[in-house]
Amino acid sequence: MQVAVIGTGLIGTSVALAVREHGGGVWLADEDPEAVRLAANLGAGEPLPETAAGAPADVAVIAVPPSAVAATLAAAQARRLAACYTDVASVKQLPVTQARALGCDMTSYVPGHPLAGREKHGPAAARADLFLGRTWALCPAAETSAQAVATVTTLVRMCGAVPVRADAAAHDRWVALISHAPHLVAAAMAARLDAAPPEALDLAGQGLRDVTRIAAGDAGLWTQILAANAEPVAEVLAAVAADLAEAARMLTDGDPKSVATLLELGQAGVARIPGKHGGAPREFTVVQVVIRDQPGELTRLFDAAGRAGVNVEDVRIEHSPGLPVGVAELSVRPAEAGPLLDALEAGGWPVRR
Amino acid sequence: MQVAVIGTGLIGTSVALAVREHGGGVWLADEDPEAVRLAANLGAGEPLPETAAGAPADVAVIAVPPSAVAATLAAAQARRLAACYTDVASVKQLPVTQARALGCDMTSYVPGHPLAGREKHGPAAARADLFLGRTWALCPAAETSAQAVATVTTLVRMCGAVPVRADAAAHDRWVALISHAPHLVAAAMAARLDAAPPEALDLAGQGLRDVTRIAAGDAGLWTQILAANAEPVAEVLAAVAADLAEAARMLTDGDPKSVATLLELGQAGVARIPGKHGGAPREFTVVQVVIRDQPGELTRLFDAAGRAGVNVEDVRIEHSPGLPVGVAELSVRPAEAGPLLDALEAGGWPVRR
Repeated sequence: MQVAVIGTGLIGTSVALAVREHGGGVWLADEDPEAVRLAANLGAGEPLPETAAGAPADVAVIAVPPSAVAATLAAAQARRLAACYTDVASVKQLPVTQARALGCDMTSYVPGHPLAGREKHGPAAARADLFLGRTWALCPAAETSAQAVATVTTLVRMCGAVPVRADAAAHDRWVALISHAPHLVAAAMAARLDAAPPEALDLAGQGLRDVTRIAAGDAGLWTQILAANAEPVAEVLAAVAADLAEAARMLTDGDPKSVATLLELGQAGVARIPGKHGGAPREFTVVQVVIRDQPGELTRLFDAAGRAGVNVEDVRIEHSPGLPVGVAELSVRPAEAGPLLDALEAGGWPVRR
Repeated sequence: MQVAVIGTGLIGTSVALAVREHGGGVWLADEDPEAVRLAANLGAGEPLPETAAGAPADVAVIAVPPSAVAATLAAAQARRLAACYTDVASVKQLPVTQARALGCDMTSYVPGHPLAGREKHGPAAARADLFLGRTWALCPAAETSAQAVATVTTLVRMCGAVPVRADAAAHDRWVALISHAPHLVAAAMAARLDAAPPEALDLAGQGLRDVTRIAAGDAGLWTQILAANAEPVAEVLAAVAADLAEAARMLTDGDPKSVATLLELGQAGVARIPGKHGGAPREFTVVQVVIRDQPGELTRLFDAAGRAGVNVEDVRIEHSPGLPVGVAELSVRPAEAGPLLDALEAGGWPVRR
């Protein structure tokens, strides 16, 4: 498969690396020639020849910001760059509408959105495994050819992702709820920390870190994403803002009833997020082990678990300021918690049953 | 040291377990006799004798909801249960004010708050290492005796926590910002998921999981905590609500300027949260490795890291629905990333430089 990647940022370069890893050929293009050079040096492919010569690519991946997708698609189609085209913008209605307005060939265009990302950006942050096991939404229009969908689906699978078909408008409402609005909610909470006294921040625990983590993302790109999905995002944000304003009023008035209702609704909402293994949330038992902050400690821990035949499904390490020890929280299937505790205790680990 | 724990929930029982682990004696009391029996069976101590007989305890730990602290303290002091008293409520002005109003002896009372918790509750969720390396705020009043502060400080250190002195009013403002308001913000976002279509939730990634995780906490207890710290929490929530409402308006009006400002302020706020090792956030390099979902895989991974002499500071495992593989993200000091990558590559691990 020959792929053309237009836009060698985090997503475009990661697609290129995944294709290269599977033996495919990649042409790289970006309005910043330095970004192309860096991506090529990372092994992501060869710079796209200036003039269209020889056979077109099987598929062109347009990995540019949402508002630039349609114009980039039009230009690529004008030079017959590829047999079919896809994009990776995290909104889908805007590029589709703009592509139609520009008279793009919609039969060869498969609007797409990989649900993957990092807090870092640019080609240097790219990884061939960025899409591994992630959902990749495909939103073909009514005119999109089955052949184009098949080719792009092959590319998605080559990246290790799970293709999911969706209507563009539904997709935009869904990501507003599960990605775009949460990003701005995290940012709004994190923004309150900007003027916080250092003593307050010294008390910060894992909860605050988790709630605000994604707010560290690229502010410029996120402004574009939010603007491109403005209506669905605004609807969610307005509802969250109204609930929080109401909660603030009720707390001030000494009537915490609506606060209790919101907390209960929140509990119910969290419970609906599918577990890491898909389907209904699977219950894991968490085994806590005290570990020292030194080389080999985690090795010994996992060695003990491995010898007991226990598969550690997830692990979270909690270190705390000023102490040479931390706590490893190992998530295992409930039936494996007993054997793991036995094995760890036998190995001299301080565990609590 | 002889400790009396009044309230054998998650926090009280965890204190008891930590004291027992250090060879101290513990008396257990709770208005629910079943909770006392369970805590005692877990090895947390002996039920408190009905009548005060013999010497008082060195310290009584009042581990009841915020609004019940003062009355519990008054009753304990009336029976001369201990030489000094502390509590663990996550607000400090309310119990202090109520204790004064009830005529409690303030010289023997050291208001306290361990910054530790879990999404689970009750004695069965208790752990001796719950406080390991965590901050534990102590907010003595003007009248509190140095002897009482010294005894409670010894208890805090016995639990493995780091005592931090704070003024009660300042403490309440700080935790409103770094714990109480973030909890309700997470709940308000999670509440939007309650009516979400399953297809939307299928697209959920790690970002949504992190933002909403703490909203799974005990709604009843959190309602009490928020009500007991109403003014400072309401102030933060009102500001977050106003920022989100403004962002929603600007998005609807097609003017994303204030959204960009909020995102930038959020970035700056996140950057101010101290790193896990205290002080300024330390930069770690994240090395991603693809792992299979089977016993021994993490052992082999950490074995390779350990043999390279690399200390893995943090690890996050990302599994995805439907795939037998996941990605382990290992955080290491930047200078150790090279040796780790060499070691992993030599061991046949798929890594990306």
